[in-house]
Amino acid sequence: MSEIPYKIYLSENEIPSAWYNVRADMKTKPAPLLNPGTGEPLKAEDLYPIFCEELSKQEMNNDDKWIDIPGEVLDFYKMYRPSPLVRAYCLEKALGTPAHIYYKFEGNNTSGSHKLNSAIAQAYYAKKQGLKGVTTETGAGQWGTALSMATAYFGLDCQVYMVKVSYEQKPFRREVMRTYGAKVTPSPSMTTNVGRKINEQFPGTDGSLGCAISEAVEAATSQEGYRYVLGSVLNQVLLHQSVIGLETKAALDKVGVKADMIIGCAGGGSNLGGLISPFVGEMLRGENQYEIIAVEPASCPSFTRGSYVYDFCDTGRVCPLAKMYTLGSNFMPAPNHAGGLRYHGMSTILSQLYDDGYMKARSVKQTDVFAAAEQFARVEGILPAPESSHAIKVAIDEALKCKETGEAKNIVFGLTGTGYFDLVAYQKYNDGVMDDYIPTDDDIAASLAQCPKLG
Amino acid sequence: MSEIPYKIYLSENEIPSAWYNVRADMKTKPAPLLNPGTGEPLKAEDLYPIFCEELSKQEMNNDDKWIDIPGEVLDFYKMYRPSPLVRAYCLEKALGTPAHIYYKFEGNNTSGSHKLNSAIAQAYYAKKQGLKGVTTETGAGQWGTALSMATAYFGLDCQVYMVKVSYEQKPFRREVMRTYGAKVTPSPSMTTNVGRKINEQFPGTDGSLGCAISEAVEAATSQEGYRYVLGSVLNQVLLHQSVIGLETKAALDKVGVKADMIIGCAGGGSNLGGLISPFVGEMLRGENQYEIIAVEPASCPSFTRGSYVYDFCDTGRVCPLAKMYTLGSNFMPAPNHAGGLRYHGMSTILSQLYDDGYMKARSVKQTDVFAAAEQFARVEGILPAPESSHAIKVAIDEALKCKETGEAKNIVFGLTGTGYFDLVAYQKYNDGVMDDYIPTDDDIAASLAQCPKLG
Repeated sequence: MSEIPYKIYLSENEIPSAWYNVRADMKTKPAPLLNPGTGEPLKAEDLYPIFCEELSKQEMNNDDKWIDIPGEVLDFYKMYRPSPLVRAYCLEKALGTPAHIYYKFEGNNTSGSHKLNSAIAQAYYAKKQGLKGVTTETGAGQWGTALSMATAYFGLDCQVYMVKVSYEQKPFRREVMRTYGAKVTPSPSMTTNVGRKINEQFPGTDGSLGCAISEAVEAATSQEGYRYVLGSVLNQVLLHQSVIGLETKAALDKVGVKADMIIGCAGGGSNLGGLISPFVGEMLRGENQYEIIAVEPASCPSFTRGSYVYDFCDTGRVCPLAKMYTLGSNFMPAPNHAGGLRYHGMSTILSQLYDDGYMKARSVKQTDVFAAAEQFARVEGILPAPESSHAIKVAIDEALKCKETGEAKNIVFGLTGTGYFDLVAYQKYNDGVMDDYIPTDDDIAASLAQCPKLG
Repeated sequence: MSEIPYKIYLSENEIPSAWYNVRADMKTKPAPLLNPGTGEPLKAEDLYPIFCEELSKQEMNNDDKWIDIPGEVLDFYKMYRPSPLVRAYCLEKALGTPAHIYYKFEGNNTSGSHKLNSAIAQAYYAKKQGLKGVTTETGAGQWGTALSMATAYFGLDCQVYMVKVSYEQKPFRREVMRTYGAKVTPSPSMTTNVGRKINEQFPGTDGSLGCAISEAVEAATSQEGYRYVLGSVLNQVLLHQSVIGLETKAALDKVGVKADMIIGCAGGGSNLGGLISPFVGEMLRGENQYEIIAVEPASCPSFTRGSYVYDFCDTGRVCPLAKMYTLGSNFMPAPNHAGGLRYHGMSTILSQLYDDGYMKARSVKQTDVFAAAEQFARVEGILPAPESSHAIKVAIDEALKCKETGEAKNIVFGLTGTGYFDLVAYQKYNDGVMDDYIPTDDDIAASLAQCPKLG
């Protein structure tokens, strides 16, 4: 094994030329989106007022296994991809584990995360449709930054509703987005009907992804030549993010390594869904077995404490209904610093896979996550994003289990991004004033009770 | 040329196994350091109270052309090296230039810059000598962050004196350093004799690298088991940074490209000296010709408006005398945001090469630099550090000249780091409230008049 380099790079012509659509291999397809008014399943064209047409089709496409990556998107990918698959030799040594740890590092671009993989695709289709611009929400700010970069590249206008708690904790994110020409508004704002309503209902709220989505959708549908784009949860996003998993698989194959365990953080599911898709594909086709673990914050535990029911995707209830693991669209996550994981629901694809037993889930406390982040940073030289550090925490736990059992498991995790804009959170941790917020059973039950009642 | 990829990567076994010491090829060696008391040239052992022994020897070594990179340093290099040489296809297209632009990108590590290349070497030698810890200064914070990462890796204590203006403009840098276990003090501080003296002499000063160096040296020499380390200016640092130029040369050779022009920003000279060393070596040996351009801020123009004389390396005048292009050790640069370029002097190696006609120098205004940075960020996807953006500005200028003349020059520049911690400066630029500070001739003459008088 000593021949495996620290960083396993693919060459640019090994970047996948098509995205992999895991839905094509799923026996039980993810449940369809429903019209919130009629309860009827939506067709692609029902989404055209909200999403670009091509993206609406991708959203509904359960059949095509491969979807070609457009040339202009591939050209952009070449600026920052392929991303390295890193063998964590230094972490292994520090832990004294016989496990072999690998991480797919998506942080080597200015958005600081994997979000750019889907942002550039969505901006491309918006441009191709002749739109003026797009609106979106952002939590930690990674998606908003990624989208700003993508729209700057294609010359589109970009309006970002940023979850208020992140807007305040990450003032510099706003400046990056401005540098790329985007307009950023803290959410809930007073500029939309839904924002004003949420502010009335929850005075002084820190906001949530669910609120910000509602505002961005309203902004898109009330302006000529605009559509809404979303950085997670959607099937189209998981499709674009399959590039992560495809590269990971290709890099492992290149060095002759079979993963035993694949670990990713899960907020809406974009990173995890992308990372695991080709591996899950092999499981679905009965070709291989992997242990897959979704890691979520204890403060927003959709998989581990939510219900698998139809729910609204947004707090303002303007979006379609999706069947997913959810805490209820009214669930207001505590101000956990992993802003990107503060979503009440979960990708319908991942929800179905989880329900079918193809993956496990674990929830972890924030302070434990930062301890793992700091340990990782000191030996591996990368300051991880809080979101990504959820995966690090469980990867370290599993590597330490291997130390007990003596197993040399191949553990692969997704290091989705860097924590350069999360220093307020690191400062709280360094100062010993970081809290762990865990919702009570009553909190979750009350929120779930408001899910729509469907047959 | 269409076969040249966007990113030219070397494999890990193509990382150089030895640093290149350009002094061995220089006919006129850089002038020796002098004892400030006696005016006599220093020997390596005279530096032992300040620097590690091995580093003191490297500082004085004008003879050995190659110095082996220790295995433990090479292992660390493998975590973030080789760094990519990027073909700036998107920038070329945006400029409409026939020039081919390449940049060596050193920002893909948590310190955000090339500084880590020397930090890990210096920490290694300190550890090998059995020291407890090291002290240093930092301007923009890149060097301090790099050193914190390196000392965390080797388990050494780290005390950083950070130039006050950067400490205030970059609060998050401090948290990164703390996360890696370093102690950070704004300079000039009241914790050292020299700091108190500078504060008295210049009440309310923003500080400078020169001041911070004085404080860090005092802290090192007044504590048992500590030595001082420096991130630029020194011969040893340029030696370690030769890894940048060696990789750049190897990558260009790999794709069969001969550079016509090599451009780097110059503060103390660490990046520029490292980038150009193997190219200058070819010039010194009469094997090849290159046009080499050092770019400095108009606010701190050591090369373009300074004198080539013996001067103190630090404001507090506790360090040896070096013959270099200098504005005088009392020169207080205006609060330019490129903190890493606010040094009154320049590497003695680069000073000699400049004096011998092997390179040119150009000074550029801050607002022009940020305009170039923003243009670059929008098309190349990387938000550059203000320091690095000085090189971008001149690379763009030169590419536009090629557009006039129709020449397809190969322009190579050093992109030393990312601007993720420079968002206060970007905000000023975005808000249109950034100033250009240019010292008057009288300012410079007054400061130069205080240089020591030597035969």
